[in-house]
Amino acid sequence: MSVLANFNIYNRKRHAPGTSPGVPVDKKEAAPLHVDMYVYDEMELLHTKDPQDKDIQTALKQDKKVWLNVVGSSDLKRIEKIAEHAGIHPLGIEDIVNRGQRPKVEEFTDHIIFYLRLPHKQGDSIMLEQIALYYQKGVVITFQEQVEDVFGMIRKRLEKKDGRLRTRGSDYLLYALVDALVDSYFPLFDDISDDIDKLEDLVLKDPNENLLRRVHETKRELLTLKRIVGPQRDSVNAAIRDHASFFSKETVVYLRDCSDHLIRLNDILESLRERAGSLIDMYMNVVSHRMNEIMKLLTLVSTIFMPLGFLAGIYGMNFDRASPYNLPELNYEYGYPILLGIMAAVGLSLLFYFYRKGWLKSTRLSADD
Amino acid sequence: MSVLANFNIYNRKRHAPGTSPGVPVDKKEAAPLHVDMYVYDEMELLHTKDPQDKDIQTALKQDKKVWLNVVGSSDLKRIEKIAEHAGIHPLGIEDIVNRGQRPKVEEFTDHIIFYLRLPHKQGDSIMLEQIALYYQKGVVITFQEQVEDVFGMIRKRLEKKDGRLRTRGSDYLLYALVDALVDSYFPLFDDISDDIDKLEDLVLKDPNENLLRRVHETKRELLTLKRIVGPQRDSVNAAIRDHASFFSKETVVYLRDCSDHLIRLNDILESLRERAGSLIDMYMNVVSHRMNEIMKLLTLVSTIFMPLGFLAGIYGMNFDRASPYNLPELNYEYGYPILLGIMAAVGLSLLFYFYRKGWLKSTRLSADD
Amino acid sequence: MSVLANFNIYNRKRHAPGTSPGVPVDKKEAAPLHVDMYVYDEMELLHTKDPQDKDIQTALKQDKKVWLNVVGSSDLKRIEKIAEHAGIHPLGIEDIVNRGQRPKVEEFTDHIIFYLRLPHKQGDSIMLEQIALYYQKGVVITFQEQVEDVFGMIRKRLEKKDGRLRTRGSDYLLYALVDALVDSYFPLFDDISDDIDKLEDLVLKDPNENLLRRVHETKRELLTLKRIVGPQRDSVNAAIRDHASFFSKETVVYLRDCSDHLIRLNDILESLRERAGSLIDMYMNVVSHRMNEIMKLLTLVSTIFMPLGFLAGIYGMNFDRASPYNLPELNYEYGYPILLGIMAAVGLSLLFYFYRKGWLKSTRLSADD
Amino acid sequence: MSVLANFNIYNRKRHAPGTSPGVPVDKKEAAPLHVDMYVYDEMELLHTKDPQDKDIQTALKQDKKVWLNVVGSSDLKRIEKIAEHAGIHPLGIEDIVNRGQRPKVEEFTDHIIFYLRLPHKQGDSIMLEQIALYYQKGVVITFQEQVEDVFGMIRKRLEKKDGRLRTRGSDYLLYALVDALVDSYFPLFDDISDDIDKLEDLVLKDPNENLLRRVHETKRELLTLKRIVGPQRDSVNAAIRDHASFFSKETVVYLRDCSDHLIRLNDILESLRERAGSLIDMYMNVVSHRMNEIMKLLTLVSTIFMPLGFLAGIYGMNFDRASPYNLPELNYEYGYPILLGIMAAVGLSLLFYFYRKGWLKSTRLSADD
Amino acid sequence: MSVLANFNIYNRKRHAPGTSPGVPVDKKEAAPLHVDMYVYDEMELLHTKDPQDKDIQTALKQDKKVWLNVVGSSDLKRIEKIAEHAGIHPLGIEDIVNRGQRPKVEEFTDHIIFYLRLPHKQGDSIMLEQIALYYQKGVVITFQEQVEDVFGMIRKRLEKKDGRLRTRGSDYLLYALVDALVDSYFPLFDDISDDIDKLEDLVLKDPNENLLRRVHETKRELLTLKRIVGPQRDSVNAAIRDHASFFSKETVVYLRDCSDHLIRLNDILESLRERAGSLIDMYMNVVSHRMNEIMKLLTLVSTIFMPLGFLAGIYGMNFDRASPYNLPELNYEYGYPILLGIMAAVGLSLLFYFYRKGWLKSTRLSADD
Repeated sequence: MSVLANFNIYNRKRHAPGTSPGVPVDKKEAAPLHVDMYVYDEMELLHTKDPQDKDIQTALKQDKKVWLNVVGSSDLKRIEKIAEHAGIHPLGIEDIVNRGQRPKVEEFTDHIIFYLRLPHKQGDSIMLEQIALYYQKGVVITFQEQVEDVFGMIRKRLEKKDGRLRTRGSDYLLYALVDALVDSYFPLFDDISDDIDKLEDLVLKDPNENLLRRVHETKRELLTLKRIVGPQRDSVNAAIRDHASFFSKETVVYLRDCSDHLIRLNDILESLRERAGSLIDMYMNVVSHRMNEIMKLLTLVSTIFMPLGFLAGIYGMNFDRASPYNLPELNYEYGYPILLGIMAAVGLSLLFYFYRKGWLKSTRLSADD
Repeated sequence: MSVLANFNIYNRKRHAPGTSPGVPVDKKEAAPLHVDMYVYDEMELLHTKDPQDKDIQTALKQDKKVWLNVVGSSDLKRIEKIAEHAGIHPLGIEDIVNRGQRPKVEEFTDHIIFYLRLPHKQGDSIMLEQIALYYQKGVVITFQEQVEDVFGMIRKRLEKKDGRLRTRGSDYLLYALVDALVDSYFPLFDDISDDIDKLEDLVLKDPNENLLRRVHETKRELLTLKRIVGPQRDSVNAAIRDHASFFSKETVVYLRDCSDHLIRLNDILESLRERAGSLIDMYMNVVSHRMNEIMKLLTLVSTIFMPLGFLAGIYGMNFDRASPYNLPELNYEYGYPILLGIMAAVGLSLLFYFYRKGWLKSTRLSADD
Repeated sequence: MSVLANFNIYNRKRHAPGTSPGVPVDKKEAAPLHVDMYVYDEMELLHTKDPQDKDIQTALKQDKKVWLNVVGSSDLKRIEKIAEHAGIHPLGIEDIVNRGQRPKVEEFTDHIIFYLRLPHKQGDSIMLEQIALYYQKGVVITFQEQVEDVFGMIRKRLEKKDGRLRTRGSDYLLYALVDALVDSYFPLFDDISDDIDKLEDLVLKDPNENLLRRVHETKRELLTLKRIVGPQRDSVNAAIRDHASFFSKETVVYLRDCSDHLIRLNDILESLRERAGSLIDMYMNVVSHRMNEIMKLLTLVSTIFMPLGFLAGIYGMNFDRASPYNLPELNYEYGYPILLGIMAAVGLSLLFYFYRKGWLKSTRLSADD
Repeated sequence: MSVLANFNIYNRKRHAPGTSPGVPVDKKEAAPLHVDMYVYDEMELLHTKDPQDKDIQTALKQDKKVWLNVVGSSDLKRIEKIAEHAGIHPLGIEDIVNRGQRPKVEEFTDHIIFYLRLPHKQGDSIMLEQIALYYQKGVVITFQEQVEDVFGMIRKRLEKKDGRLRTRGSDYLLYALVDALVDSYFPLFDDISDDIDKLEDLVLKDPNENLLRRVHETKRELLTLKRIVGPQRDSVNAAIRDHASFFSKETVVYLRDCSDHLIRLNDILESLRERAGSLIDMYMNVVSHRMNEIMKLLTLVSTIFMPLGFLAGIYGMNFDRASPYNLPELNYEYGYPILLGIMAAVGLSLLFYFYRKGWLKSTRLSADD
Repeated sequence: MSVLANFNIYNRKRHAPGTSPGVPVDKKEAAPLHVDMYVYDEMELLHTKDPQDKDIQTALKQDKKVWLNVVGSSDLKRIEKIAEHAGIHPLGIEDIVNRGQRPKVEEFTDHIIFYLRLPHKQGDSIMLEQIALYYQKGVVITFQEQVEDVFGMIRKRLEKKDGRLRTRGSDYLLYALVDALVDSYFPLFDDISDDIDKLEDLVLKDPNENLLRRVHETKRELLTLKRIVGPQRDSVNAAIRDHASFFSKETVVYLRDCSDHLIRLNDILESLRERAGSLIDMYMNVVSHRMNEIMKLLTLVSTIFMPLGFLAGIYGMNFDRASPYNLPELNYEYGYPILLGIMAAVGLSLLFYFYRKGWLKSTRLSADD
């Protein structure tokens, strides 16, 4: 089975053209909503599950650092309310709730929002789930759809008292979350690379239409990934270049490392795409080559048996043997053995001709594998 | 049927080279002209149908915000007159009236004009109608050709007293109109994407010349769309970058969101184009593969029946059986059954040979689907 | 016939490497030289045919605006003299006289020269004639090779007393001339587009080597045009960007419109080139598909008649029917009708097999068109 | 055998997404660790093998220039310790220890690190080993994995008392090391170029699937090299452009020469890639051409023997010769010789037809080579 | 024969990685060394053949302008000495002596060196010989390998007392030399263009493997030229842009003209490359088309003669004619003529079927050419 099968890249539910911006589009099949609130500084860490609105408002007003992890999408109203409490711009709220955004970074007066994608196994296929990361000095809010715990590692690190996540500013937490998202692409790409390796072997061994379908599917999946990975790289670069004022100098060094990983991801993706593209050529080449082999066999058989059949046909004619000019060979005592000899000679010399041309070898070879 | 069939991209009616610029080209088959004038501020909204010239002039001099919606192209003289009343530059008037412009944004001393395209169903085909949007502080004039009400949604929003359209400046109305145009491409692209999905399936199932024609048609339609969507994106970006002084800071945020949608459109278009391009390869691959199957069948049949036919031919020869050396086999009591046995052995071993090469399976498979 | 047949793009007569620059290359087959001098201001227009050198010198010293239209290339000496009178740089004179320049704009201390190309019907083929346009404040000199009156329209507009050409500066005349040149490409591109439409139909209907030749010819012609249209666009852009000081602010608005047309030309050219390129693919696809049809027919015929022929061959053998084991079927009373029945059954079931595979339909179809 | 066979480009051992940066990934199969310390100035050179930590610390504090050459990867702890003594940033240490970095140059407050790749023969395949070069004023530390002495030449030059390496600053040593790495790609590229030459000959002589596999392998290897050589060039350019303050003006001249070599490498790589790409086309062309030859032979044989066989079949029919209308030819005295004559005439005229079409020549030719 | 056959682009003799820069690589098969020294000003010109070292040193110290033309490469020591006398940077000397440099311009404190390539006929092939041009105020030194006099034209112009070469500065001489090198590419490109024209005709007329080899060879030669012409254009542009301080304002105008020629060369090269690339497609198309013709012939012959042969086979069967059901046709009086009639009808109707499909025409056509 192909690694990727179903991408929910850009959702198709959209506003009717002309409706007011900032009004979220209605959605179905949503995962139930959970909120985790972490209020922390170097000393303390307070974890509240599904806090009330007023808890959130209080926390946001405090001097401590806050991370709100909003998971699920069943209750859009509540998500919007949390976003409004945090003072997110209406356009921002719209994009958080309508989860089909192109990866981007948007700056509003006092806050910045990253819209990224997390590759996400769902049964046999992989979803590219949108994760929105809101950052304002002291506050990080993450919005994700699936319940699966992608930030588990970071929760654990947050609990360590002396960890950098506790001692440094919220922007370091933001970096840690973005980095976790980015690094989750590497194993995915490794899988696809293995897949292409396998396809290359199969194309050379046994090109068939089913395989062709898989090759084109892989090509298309990489095309989809390109539409996500490229903008993701541009976004993080833009964050460093254009919105550096949001981050401390130290965190910028870390973000640059993260941008580095994204460039590497893009490199790998480009070479995967090039390899997938050359699979098509390879398929074509192999099929043409097989055709050659098939035709050689046909030509060999025809070239040998057509003249022989013609000879046999000659001596099957019913000319009146009363005339000494009509098929006198039929009356020779050794007519038949001589003809057989001639036939063997013709057949063998044709075989030798094909042997000299190297046809026998290659047809035999292709029969072996 | 293909989604797109007929594009009236760049009109071919042009000036004879060397004529004076600013003189509009004559046009036929025009839709009747209607003008809707909205004079409004936060408090009031006055809607006048087909206002007189002096009404327009009065409205433009007022302090209130004005939207003139000019629909149809039957009376070019009148369109020019309205444009002149609004003080549009001669080059601008020429481009408004000759509706085949490349999407662009043009700044003149105190006004700015957007020339965009609206995808537009007309029977089975889709037209890309030019919409010109004139903006000057307090005044928006839209020029469109078809009577169909593309801005209906916006009219309704305009009637709401507290809506942002009423409270904000005219530049917000301009944004709302541009946004409506841009968003109308998404369903179109969804349709084309579905179309390509279907073509992919068909190419793998039954490649034929009719299908090939459709594949190339789709490719060409996407080429045409590229010539519209790319410049449209560049225009809105240029408006933000170079002509930002025309717009309030708040509206620029909204325009940026709109430019974002255009970038996304372009992304989608590029990947549609890439997919359409790889359809050609796929077609080629499938056809080659089918050829292989056909040739395998031919070779299989020939390779089995040619030697057998030759054997039968041998024993159809009329050598004089008086000589004991001439075809003695014909006189054996079991000659015929033995020969049949030999023939069966030859045929079966050839069949086994092809079975080992995997030919039997594949030809059978391709017969099933 | 193809629209374009012969391009005299870059002339091959060149200096021997190492000769002094500024020395014009000798040329044959030149059109006879004519000079038209227009001395004009808002009030008056004086048209002199083939003026003397001293008339030109007097005119250039006057306060009025001057347009010298130099047509033909028979008398290079005289062209050089006129150029020297106007104070053109030696390198400029060389490029004016050697008419194979790449489109460009060159600025010298007090003057600027545009080297552009005019598409030009000459019998069945189209020449891309070089037109050099010299501009200095108050003076425009145009150098063209063919006698055909490409600027006729502009002459007429110049005679109108109140026309913009008379009231505005010489730079507006320059713009008008450049615009006329640029607009003359649109009908040419329309013709090529129609040509490609026709080729697309023909490729799908009847791919043959003659057609292939035409496809490749068209591709090559577009390649040639690209080498002209691209630099032309760059030149006019460079003129606006780098040499704007030469032109009045109002004229720059017009030149920008002209540059706009050039961008559009380039767009159209690029999509023509892409369409021509995909013709090659289409040709390949169609030919492969035809091959499939041919092979299906061959395989169908062989697969049906080879087994039948073999059966007939069996019963043509001469085994001694004295033995009851040798071909007893031949002695059956209904042997022949039974065999015919078997043959019909074999043939029909093979036909049915091919019908199920859909071969019968397609071969029949391709026979119809 | 292909020159390159196995690339260990980007190691797959990575952090679990979300772990803290700066924590090195564990690694196996490591080469034993050796450290060579050179402390030198113009007068003296002190070479210490496997120095203690305190030796290193003392050396780093001295006024003399220091080169630490760290080879092998068995003891990651120790490598980290050395890196910490030198004051390398945690992100830097992570990238030094996890040897799968994309070539890059990273600047930290007072030091700069180059991550480059050394092509490296290992049995039949070539590894692209990561070499990290740390530079701080007066100190160069190189981290490499393999024990093979790639910097032997530089060691020797360092021992020469008056050599530039001794008299100039540490930045010149850095340049010398980078230059040695860069120049080691040239012989590798020469080998690949020879390989492609050979493949071109083979494709034209004997295209087979094994060859096709090698062609695609070569293409893929070049793709891998591109992912290394391109970033390497960008890194050195970035070092000159963005981090020039680290280097003396004289050394920048040398680094520019080195960057020049990298541009050349990139040029060569691009043309190798283009040549490898056109091998695929060539293969396709040759295979198609061979197919043509095969089909010509088949068609020739069939076209000659099918009519002849049919004629023989006619006269093998058993019509009742009692009727004078049934096969009277069989009773002619010269029936057989006449038929033979007709057959010869038919065969020879078909042969002549094919000779005229040039088929005989080409099939014979392709049999020769 | 192809125009280009052997390129000595980048010499493979290189330093062992790690050796000191500035040490020239040893070389064999060198042309004998000649030096021509011209010491000149407006008044005088002194030509010395093979001057002594002290003559050179004296000349360089003089106030007059100096051109040293160093030809041949037999005596590297002496070349180095001359270079040292002129004060060339060690890196410069290395690149002058090792003649495989990428075209480039290098600035050192008070001098600038151009490394360009001269296309150069050598028997049937063309060498791209490196020419190094050193320029310092008042001094030009040219280093070339072959004895052939490429600068003969310039020598002659230098002897003319009032020529610009004598009156202007040394930078004008430098320009003249560079211009001569650049212009020597035009005839070469004309030859290649003619070659491609011929190949296009041949591919359409008679595609064979020998031709294919030539097509790919041409493609590869153009690839090689691209690696020279592109950097050459960049170098001269860089000289104008970055090192303009070396040249007088007047000479910069001339150099810009020269850069213009290089851009044109690049244009031509790109379109030659595109045409060579489309030769491959054309070859493929033609071969496929020929294949179609061949297969049509085979199918036509088989489809006609297989059914006929089967009919003849039927009546060659030996069923016992005692039974009235066994082959009664054989006993009919007109059996044979009727059968012949049926055969003729079948054959002719099949022929008519193929005629309707247009196969007869095309096979006949392809036989003619």
